[in-house]
Amino acid sequence: MDPVHDYEIFELGDFVLQHGATLRGARLAYQTYGTLNAAKDNAIVYPTWYSGRHWDNEWLIGEGRALDPSRYFVIVPNMLGNGLSSSPSNTPPPYDRARFPHVTMWDNVEAQHRLVTEHFGIRTLPLVTGWSMGAGQTYQWAVSHPEMVQRFAPFCGSSVTSEHNQVFLEGVKAALTADDAFRGGWYDQPPVKGLRAAARVYAGWGFSQAFYWNKVYREMGYSSLEDFLVGFWEGFFLDDRDANNLLTMLWTWQHADVGRTPGFDGDTVAALRSITAKGIVLPAEKDLYFPPEDEAWACQYIADAEHRVIPGVWGHFAGGGDNPVDVDFIDAALKDLLAR
Amino acid sequence: MDPVHDYEIFELGDFVLQHGATLRGARLAYQTYGTLNAAKDNAIVYPTWYSGRHWDNEWLIGEGRALDPSRYFVIVPNMLGNGLSSSPSNTPPPYDRARFPHVTMWDNVEAQHRLVTEHFGIRTLPLVTGWSMGAGQTYQWAVSHPEMVQRFAPFCGSSVTSEHNQVFLEGVKAALTADDAFRGGWYDQPPVKGLRAAARVYAGWGFSQAFYWNKVYREMGYSSLEDFLVGFWEGFFLDDRDANNLLTMLWTWQHADVGRTPGFDGDTVAALRSITAKGIVLPAEKDLYFPPEDEAWACQYIADAEHRVIPGVWGHFAGGGDNPVDVDFIDAALKDLLAR
Repeated sequence: MDPVHDYEIFELGDFVLQHGATLRGARLAYQTYGTLNAAKDNAIVYPTWYSGRHWDNEWLIGEGRALDPSRYFVIVPNMLGNGLSSSPSNTPPPYDRARFPHVTMWDNVEAQHRLVTEHFGIRTLPLVTGWSMGAGQTYQWAVSHPEMVQRFAPFCGSSVTSEHNQVFLEGVKAALTADDAFRGGWYDQPPVKGLRAAARVYAGWGFSQAFYWNKVYREMGYSSLEDFLVGFWEGFFLDDRDANNLLTMLWTWQHADVGRTPGFDGDTVAALRSITAKGIVLPAEKDLYFPPEDEAWACQYIADAEHRVIPGVWGHFAGGGDNPVDVDFIDAALKDLLAR
Repeated sequence: MDPVHDYEIFELGDFVLQHGATLRGARLAYQTYGTLNAAKDNAIVYPTWYSGRHWDNEWLIGEGRALDPSRYFVIVPNMLGNGLSSSPSNTPPPYDRARFPHVTMWDNVEAQHRLVTEHFGIRTLPLVTGWSMGAGQTYQWAVSHPEMVQRFAPFCGSSVTSEHNQVFLEGVKAALTADDAFRGGWYDQPPVKGLRAAARVYAGWGFSQAFYWNKVYREMGYSSLEDFLVGFWEGFFLDDRDANNLLTMLWTWQHADVGRTPGFDGDTVAALRSITAKGIVLPAEKDLYFPPEDEAWACQYIADAEHRVIPGVWGHFAGGGDNPVDVDFIDAALKDLLAR
């Protein structure tokens, strides 16, 4: 789409977060694809993932795809903390940088709900979908707004962040913050050593054992394992990824749990049981931090959710858009779901 | 056994390493259990694992166990770099600390072979076994000395370190060395922040997703996830684990490959095909860095090796001796093998 990555801003005003802070002058960055119809009943919400920006979601949108902009109005809201929406890196004092407040999945969905309802006047959503933390926001939409969400399709994500997943993220966080240049978040220059360390920690988790065994990174254009670690992973974390932004989103991820939706008092199962939307839940076979069994667990409590595993060796990145086979698998599932 | 952890030292003299350095006055620390018989045909070699010391192996040795000291003479050699055998932390200049040379699996087994043959006069080994990097040394023994090794039983380890496993270790290394206090290995005080970060990275890998989902750490005496991360994992890395020692063993691990045995010119499959010992290869069902499929791959090239998967949720630590069910499973396999 646009090479300079245009986007729109929805002014959230003084946005009160679930944990009590007020983010004054909060902003939600988003992009849309397609046209909202007169009935305003063709909108799909497709939130971003950990450190992703709206343009990183575009691979799933296109003519002939389930998310066809000639038919649907696809809204991609950028997650709070991702550097485009309100984030440590772009918020003025006093809530800037290391002092940026804790943001929950619920907060993200509330901000998106305001965009969708106040700005666009939309009252129903044929589909919410997303990858990874985008899947978490998808679950949260289905719990927060059953009156709006007709269908939901989280891929490679979960309704609650498992303890193992929390531990994986602890490793990423510890590596990032071990760099003295991080200075407790009050750096003037990026803590490059910590960012590169976090990248190397992440590398083992993002793709499966079999992906590495088969050297599938070669299909992505990397000439060796080390080239993949530097070229893909370190490059990924150095591509405008601000350390405090990463830690803000990491906190959101670690604390994700639909049971923490107001009214459910921490009861994840009750929250899952409250979902009325039709769903297809799409974990990846070899995802190391969102394993299929976690989603099988969730599905047993949802009235109408199919558990459909994405096969193959790509692990978590089955949902990242780099593997055409996985893209087609996810797209086919979305088409199936939209036909229900 | 002995609460002050007595051990013996075998003087290796000027020990020439596979990569060319000579470790002058090299020392191999070891402990033995039981009595060598007159025929000298009842010795079992049971090497240590990444950062383990001989006493950490003792859970598998005992009356009624396969490794019964009333019947067998069990030799536990400490791996080079583990802080007891020659290591960065105990080697005088000029090969001290960050200048400690690269050590291979082959080097470790050569040192152990000298102990076994020169010091004890042993010419045959009914069994070599070990966990994790101890499993790697077990494979190396079977390749380096087919004339001696009658049986081999590697558990939760491999004949060659897979690329994914290398990546996992890159994350551990990057976290440890991200701490400025590491000072390129020339620290006077331990890089505690880096050690704790490495511990948190390791935590996600050592046990399976299901282990954390089921909060099995409670059975180990930890009261919460954070208590497990601090009490077990950080405590583990702060328990006399020297950073340079850890990096020495990490290098050994990353570069482990029986194909690098002199004479095989990097051909892992040829090295596996050369194994004449009878084996039972014991990966753990949910081991995240030594997955069972890697061992199934190895077994297809070994003339007489059974692939027997340790079931359950403990992941890599199924071989760590903390779970009685897994201990019994491994012990039963060793008994089966010794009866062949």
